[in-house]
Amino acid sequence: MRKIEHIGIAVQDLEESNALFAKLLGKKHFKTEKVEGEAVETSFFQVGETKVELLQATNPNSAIAKYLEKKKPGVHHIAFDVENIEAEVERLKGEGFEILNETPKQGADNKLVVFLHPRTTNGVLVELCQEISVNSK
Amino acid sequence: MRKIEHIGIAVQDLEESNALFAKLLGKKHFKTEKVEGEAVETSFFQVGETKVELLQATNPNSAIAKYLEKKKPGVHHIAFDVENIEAEVERLKGEGFEILNETPKQGADNKLVVFLHPRTTNGVLVELCQEISVNSK
Repeated sequence: MRKIEHIGIAVQDLEESNALFAKLLGKKHFKTEKVEGEAVETSFFQVGETKVELLQATNPNSAIAKYLEKKKPGVHHIAFDVENIEAEVERLKGEGFEILNETPKQGADNKLVVFLHPRTTNGVLVELCQEISVNSK
Repeated sequence: MRKIEHIGIAVQDLEESNALFAKLLGKKHFKTEKVEGEAVETSFFQVGETKVELLQATNPNSAIAKYLEKKKPGVHHIAFDVENIEAEVERLKGEGFEILNETPKQGADNKLVVFLHPRTTNGVLVELCQEISVNSK
């Protein structure tokens, strides 16, 4: 866990929320990206070494759509940057954390990602992410 | 908004959650602090340039106690480091954000803090915080 890579925030309308966060943070998002496998459209704002990621569902089966059926827009997950995601998954399994996807999957922003179940992490949906380098995968 | 200063997480039992986050983050909290004015006991973990702050209520009138009456433990607020908190409050008021306390108050970790109402910030309870320097206040 080298740093907080980003904070994921579930939104209803990405365009409206992009404008809102631009006012809040005093700067615009630096990119948008669709992640087909997750059925989300995302935008990213840089804040120091961390990013704010806004997430809007692109269809009703998206995890974000299901989240917003039950809860209000707001903080959805906290993502930690890790050097070796497989090693970190093994370490956390050994510590008793419940891993939602043991095989890392492709996330936004050129990352391999794994999620931990909030019921084992004090209610926080935790994402581990490792930058995909040219030399790996 | 220079960086994300910390992520505040509401917990039921600080001792249990300290042990849990030590396993998750691979390191122990570096300090605990009671904030009498907020009726909370806090602990801090360093992660890169950001901190994870765990918050436990010390009495039933605490904002954290009231939060946990309605919601489950989890992410409570996101705190942004600002250079000049009064100037930032003025800027954000001008942008239409609702300020919960216009006069900065003493928070944990030697900070002056101001909160923005989540209804104007996409459901995220936003804290602004400015380090109290020897030369100010």
